[in-house]
Amino acid sequence: MCPHALIPYKPKNPKTRLSSILSQEEREQFAEAMLADVIDAVKDVNCMPVIVSTELFDSDLVQVTVQDADLNQTLNEILPRAENPVIIIMADMPLADGPSIRRVISTTKDIAIVPGRGGGTNAIFLKEPQKFHVDYYGGSFAKHLAIAEKAGLSVEVIDSFRLHTDIDEDDDLVELLIHGTGKSRAYLEGLGFALSTDKGRAGVTRKR
Amino acid sequence: MCPHALIPYKPKNPKTRLSSILSQEEREQFAEAMLADVIDAVKDVNCMPVIVSTELFDSDLVQVTVQDADLNQTLNEILPRAENPVIIIMADMPLADGPSIRRVISTTKDIAIVPGRGGGTNAIFLKEPQKFHVDYYGGSFAKHLAIAEKAGLSVEVIDSFRLHTDIDEDDDLVELLIHGTGKSRAYLEGLGFALSTDKGRAGVTRKR
Repeated sequence: MCPHALIPYKPKNPKTRLSSILSQEEREQFAEAMLADVIDAVKDVNCMPVIVSTELFDSDLVQVTVQDADLNQTLNEILPRAENPVIIIMADMPLADGPSIRRVISTTKDIAIVPGRGGGTNAIFLKEPQKFHVDYYGGSFAKHLAIAEKAGLSVEVIDSFRLHTDIDEDDDLVELLIHGTGKSRAYLEGLGFALSTDKGRAGVTRKR
Repeated sequence: MCPHALIPYKPKNPKTRLSSILSQEEREQFAEAMLADVIDAVKDVNCMPVIVSTELFDSDLVQVTVQDADLNQTLNEILPRAENPVIIIMADMPLADGPSIRRVISTTKDIAIVPGRGGGTNAIFLKEPQKFHVDYYGGSFAKHLAIAEKAGLSVEVIDSFRLHTDIDEDDDLVELLIHGTGKSRAYLEGLGFALSTDKGRAGVTRKR
């Protein structure tokens, strides 16, 4: 069974917390490159990507669902109508790869959930999507655990740093430059980003 | 086979990058609590903890190896004499648990390695320790991969956010408060630390 992979995506003015180091046009191109990496990973395990975007955008690779609503409302209109397992996976996780996603979708529990940095939810796999609803933003990992418990659904928390690492802030780029292998790392390197290392943790620098 | 777990540990004035939010005495107590969590995790998979400390410190639980040398030199004197598999695991990874460590020590490769935040090495498992030497600090993950390749040793990179999350900076405490279950989380909460959440990532606050 290859579940549908719902990928929320914001094509216009995304990743505003990276504004100090990337222009709006660069942020839009970078978000597109990260999306491409996530799509590659999802296809690697034969999931069918479905981009959930609030705006039309060009893509002949994937289905696009467009609704004028916030992320929670949009997803919560899709889930009750889903007849097969669904994975919801964020578009800003460029370290996602086939093996990490396979661990998520091969859970023996009703739900598998991957926490993101700072208490968010980076991926959630639902064997019976109609029994669940999402509540993103503001500590969603804890909220999703509570929703599952209330619905009587068993949960596996997937321990993956590749899926834990969402890219929101400057420091997050470090992990992408160290562990990335896809288009978004190449995009950053093309802009002149490189690791700066001394004796502690690595940082990033940009040569212009 | 239960490998020895070498745990480098600095009892005096540790974790100086947390100085803005913790006093020296608090940092020492916090480091000790994190060490206790790592020891619990290691024992959970029947590994034998061996604290590698450059200073004497009280412990009736574990063996202590004390040498007047830097970490690399100390470990590189131990490894050639090790006759059985060894895991080297840092003392500042309080999210370590039995299942994550089991993934490391049950690798089918010669070596399993866990990258830390910012390019470090949080854990490394060596089936034949005498064939390897360590080179910590400054991008050690990449250096250890290169050392393994040069020695003709096969490597598995373990994808675990619990073992990826070392605690060096203020922001790292967020993950401990979200996902921790042991003594170090309890220690922080006893000091008044709590999560602060709004709509983005969680932060930490301290009530005095």
